[in-house]
Amino acid sequence: MAKHRIALGISYQGQAYSGWQVQSNQSTIQEAVETALTKFITEPTQVVSAGRTDTGVHAINQVVHLDTDATRSDNSWVRGVNSFLPPDIRIKWAKEVAPDFHARFDAQARTYVYILRNHAVQSAVLKGLVGWYHMPLNLEKMQEAAQLLLGEHDFSSFRSSECQAHSPIRTIHHLHIQKQGNLFIFSVKGDGFLHHMVRNIVGSLVYVGKGKYEPTYMTELLAHRQRKYAAPTFMADGLYLAHIDYPKKSGINELMPEVDVADSLSYLLNA
Amino acid sequence: MAKHRIALGISYQGQAYSGWQVQSNQSTIQEAVETALTKFITEPTQVVSAGRTDTGVHAINQVVHLDTDATRSDNSWVRGVNSFLPPDIRIKWAKEVAPDFHARFDAQARTYVYILRNHAVQSAVLKGLVGWYHMPLNLEKMQEAAQLLLGEHDFSSFRSSECQAHSPIRTIHHLHIQKQGNLFIFSVKGDGFLHHMVRNIVGSLVYVGKGKYEPTYMTELLAHRQRKYAAPTFMADGLYLAHIDYPKKSGINELMPEVDVADSLSYLLNA
Repeated sequence: MAKHRIALGISYQGQAYSGWQVQSNQSTIQEAVETALTKFITEPTQVVSAGRTDTGVHAINQVVHLDTDATRSDNSWVRGVNSFLPPDIRIKWAKEVAPDFHARFDAQARTYVYILRNHAVQSAVLKGLVGWYHMPLNLEKMQEAAQLLLGEHDFSSFRSSECQAHSPIRTIHHLHIQKQGNLFIFSVKGDGFLHHMVRNIVGSLVYVGKGKYEPTYMTELLAHRQRKYAAPTFMADGLYLAHIDYPKKSGINELMPEVDVADSLSYLLNA
Repeated sequence: MAKHRIALGISYQGQAYSGWQVQSNQSTIQEAVETALTKFITEPTQVVSAGRTDTGVHAINQVVHLDTDATRSDNSWVRGVNSFLPPDIRIKWAKEVAPDFHARFDAQARTYVYILRNHAVQSAVLKGLVGWYHMPLNLEKMQEAAQLLLGEHDFSSFRSSECQAHSPIRTIHHLHIQKQGNLFIFSVKGDGFLHHMVRNIVGSLVYVGKGKYEPTYMTELLAHRQRKYAAPTFMADGLYLAHIDYPKKSGINELMPEVDVADSLSYLLNA
């Protein structure tokens, strides 16, 4: 058994990668992280993550754990691994955790943030970092619709056909939408999310926001339990895996501030 | 003489380009814009810009003018040219102007914004879009130092050796610094700027912010009138050409809101 179990908090820009998970012949974030770790501690290293992210999806706090015989300070893990990583991936924090800590199975809740630009012209400066919709959106109608998704539901209507989860039942703890200038910022926290679930929710809320359907569309969609009734999967560009809740005893919650739902945008920019 | 003179407002991300100005064997933003215009109106087209920007520098509102026989609506210029541009360059607005309007010579003032991340770890998510300094910076000291640069001065100490301007005399109208979380946002407005002047000012203010010098260092630098006394040129990543003032009669000021110095960051994100 390895001497140490280390948890790492990782931030990345997703545009240049075929998502998180290692795939043959594809450049992935997991592969870049494992390569950098292997170089830093000069022993082959694999990581277990809190969850996968798709091509083009970003992270403020992806969390992984790894086992190693190497002894390094927390700060040394951050600086050392970063020195072997490309600049669109950064280790933000590191902490030695208990041997039974598990980045995936101990995750109690996940928070995603989606930034949507609502303007006639796409953003050049924030290319790849924000989603885009060109027609005016009604904030109040979207907020009303969002409330109908709270709690435990069968989210089959919002689930990609490639989703490998055993059950389509998930619980959404909150789904806040704010408007800051031209930007709509969605913050959604749940016990877990099905494949494409957040992007399908955003797409369906946009249908309500542009007036195609009334907010009660959400209740109908849940009842259908079939993907074909919901809106197309919204673009990956504006999606961020922002935060993961772990049991207090893990000692890593204090390294990841919760998303400030009153100002999710500042949270992202400062992360 | 061509029938129409058109002014365009252009936003871009600078990372992928060797700056604004056309150069042989280099990919530049001017070249991309002229190529898109030529495709849209199917006649060779050149533009005159308000000013150059260096490699890696971004723009919220670069302004150009061009002469053409083609007759298009303002909206058609925006949509049509954008359809031939890469997504890191966007035409934001277009307007037919008087035949004697000149994007460069009519510019009365220019505003640049610089975003600096002050954190132990660089930002992955905002890679290329923000500058970075790892040691804590003192906002009040930097604000005090910034005030010493206001007004008309000989800015030789802040001028690159490659600067081609005839005179080193420039007037700074304002130089605001705000802190939003980990981000310091500098907003500087002046009648014009020498080559590297904004980045050299930011670098020198960082010297004050980290405590290497007192705010009065700025007054000494101005008096030296030699580049060698100022700080190294700060990285291009966080620099944005944000706004250009033109005479009211041009009719284009209303297409470009002034930088909101009380919240320059929101201005940038929403632009």
